Amino acid sequence: MDSHFTFELLAEQGSARAGMFYTPHGPIQTPVFAPVGTQATVKSVTPAQLKDTGASLVLANTYHLYLRPGADLVAEFGGLHEFMRWSGPMLTDSGGFQVFSLSGTNKIDDEGVTFKSHIDGSLHRFTPESSIAVQEQLGADIIMAFDECAVPDDRAYNLKAMNRTHEWVQRCMKAKTRSDQALFGIVQGGVFADLREESARFISGLGLPGSAIGGLSVGETKEQMHAMLEVVDPILPRNKPRYLMGVGSPEDLVNGVKRGVDIFDCVLPTRLARHQAAFTSNGRINLMNRQFARDHQPIDEHCTCYACQSFSRGYLRHLVVAREMLAATLISIHNIHFLVALMGRIRQSILAHRFDEFAASFLETYTTTTKQET
Amino acid sequence: MDSHFTFELLAEQGSARAGMFYTPHGPIQTPVFAPVGTQATVKSVTPAQLKDTGASLVLANTYHLYLRPGADLVAEFGGLHEFMRWSGPMLTDSGGFQVFSLSGTNKIDDEGVTFKSHIDGSLHRFTPESSIAVQEQLGADIIMAFDECAVPDDRAYNLKAMNRTHEWVQRCMKAKTRSDQALFGIVQGGVFADLREESARFISGLGLPGSAIGGLSVGETKEQMHAMLEVVDPILPRNKPRYLMGVGSPEDLVNGVKRGVDIFDCVLPTRLARHQAAFTSNGRINLMNRQFARDHQPIDEHCTCYACQSFSRGYLRHLVVAREMLAATLISIHNIHFLVALMGRIRQSILAHRFDEFAASFLETYTTTTKQET
Repeated sequence: MDSHFTFELLAEQGSARAGMFYTPHGPIQTPVFAPVGTQATVKSVTPAQLKDTGASLVLANTYHLYLRPGADLVAEFGGLHEFMRWSGPMLTDSGGFQVFSLSGTNKIDDEGVTFKSHIDGSLHRFTPESSIAVQEQLGADIIMAFDECAVPDDRAYNLKAMNRTHEWVQRCMKAKTRSDQALFGIVQGGVFADLREESARFISGLGLPGSAIGGLSVGETKEQMHAMLEVVDPILPRNKPRYLMGVGSPEDLVNGVKRGVDIFDCVLPTRLARHQAAFTSNGRINLMNRQFARDHQPIDEHCTCYACQSFSRGYLRHLVVAREMLAATLISIHNIHFLVALMGRIRQSILAHRFDEFAASFLETYTTTTKQET
Repeated sequence: MDSHFTFELLAEQGSARAGMFYTPHGPIQTPVFAPVGTQATVKSVTPAQLKDTGASLVLANTYHLYLRPGADLVAEFGGLHEFMRWSGPMLTDSGGFQVFSLSGTNKIDDEGVTFKSHIDGSLHRFTPESSIAVQEQLGADIIMAFDECAVPDDRAYNLKAMNRTHEWVQRCMKAKTRSDQALFGIVQGGVFADLREESARFISGLGLPGSAIGGLSVGETKEQMHAMLEVVDPILPRNKPRYLMGVGSPEDLVNGVKRGVDIFDCVLPTRLARHQAAFTSNGRINLMNRQFARDHQPIDEHCTCYACQSFSRGYLRHLVVAREMLAATLISIHNIHFLVALMGRIRQSILAHRFDEFAASFLETYTTTTKQET
């Protein structure tokens, strides 16, 4: 089982790691940022454009695809890779996070979760077994154990949710039948160091090909997130990839790598793009801003993406003001490329043993100017 | 003046013509279909994707760009080609049609037209001179004389509008200063054969590098449109390109070429795409339709566009149902490619002297099935 998945650790600096994770759809250079294709499409970009950004790993959401178009339909088309025409590595989440955050009234018991569709209000039920069955139909390379995600600062709830998550990951392992998918367990525990420690030990003991850190970036402070990463980092297996779920701002990526994370995903680059916001080396800018109307510069003068190689901020602002769809496409291409390229630079700096300097310099330049410009 | 523009007639079959029209931004193989980039973008596709469809000539709208972002701003960016990054031939209309059809209350006099912006209600005025000045700022290869477009079946109004259009084209010729732009005059006259004949003679006598046929596809019947094309065809200069404005359904393209037209433009392929409708060899289909949910075929099995080479109807229907922007992009790419490829096949059939058979066969297959499926 899972013989397709090998993680090669190429360099370490402090807790930061550079590696290579091999999957049936190709290798992933880590650390890596995965753009999110919620409904089997990274919003507003084609797979060809996505590939051109340099993205390797793409995430899709089990909850959304189970509801629409249905996992059986995706399976009929040969799975997600064939359906959406992404030939690189893919990851699906378990649906756990979405049934708690997106759907209507839930009934949670030890067996599973009953939830209402956010589309039509119909009732559905996920169990660890059904989540794995759906993810096997979807066919991503990396699949996630079904977990319960608690609000971060309720200790009693987090203890209960963590224990349930630990029961459920074992049921997921039993339910799993495909050898060409890697199942990752998820560390929970909210903002409580002792719970995170217990959860990290438990998940690490299962011998799974990778570990995920869930329940962060959901309302806690940055300091709390960093503290939790520092608790689990020394416990999680060094020779397996670690995935911090739902995190993807430039500063969070740098801070996550610094604390031992290899894989990140987030809707941020595409969601920001639909709100006209673009990453630059000096921080975030909003292209709706009048100051860009006559600006001949690209979004970021150092960027090699299609949008920056071709278009001025003035043209992009025109598209934004004229409510043209192309604005979202071009800014999405840029934002995804920006994060992918940032991860590439981080990786190079780890390989060259100058990550600390890179991280310090990036965080200094990026956050300061963001504050000035927004 | 206009020495950049040469029209080479390569073959004729009946009134159908295959030619080559040389412009400062490259040659145009005729007959040609030009997709429309109203606001300096062909909606939802990048210039790179547009180029891949095989499109050569792209139209942009003077009325829209004058209002937003402003022709002076476009000029500051080096003109439309630079601004929107389309390196091929471009055409701008005069704004005449839009000030009559899109804007608020108009005051028309012999001098020009006062109109209200559809964006903010502000008052503006176009004259033949200002339309040319704006089009010179925009910098397209082919520019249009400012005309008055009447409702097609009001004879008195059409007579008046035609005469005014004839006055105005002469003022446009005087106002024009750039030698790297070809000014086309516009034949008006509604659905009245004698007016069309008079207008065609007048416009033909001006020695301009090309002629346009305006005021059609605005409510008259197909039979009336064909009759008017048949009236002007023998009058317009054989050795100059003829442009039928705002026409672009597959059947209209075939019927237009048959009656001597070389250049067409229309928002149809991109507008249909945003309403989930796609051209196929057998007629139009709507991808929202449930029958396509489990359809593994591409939109059109004979099509070589990116959308058809990559995606199933089932996936496209999922994107449509899930309201994903990528649906409009992929269907636009297909629809534009379909019309461009159709023009390529028409051109080949004229060069091979088998256009009549091609046209008969196409119209038979296309229209019959369209009626059955919609």
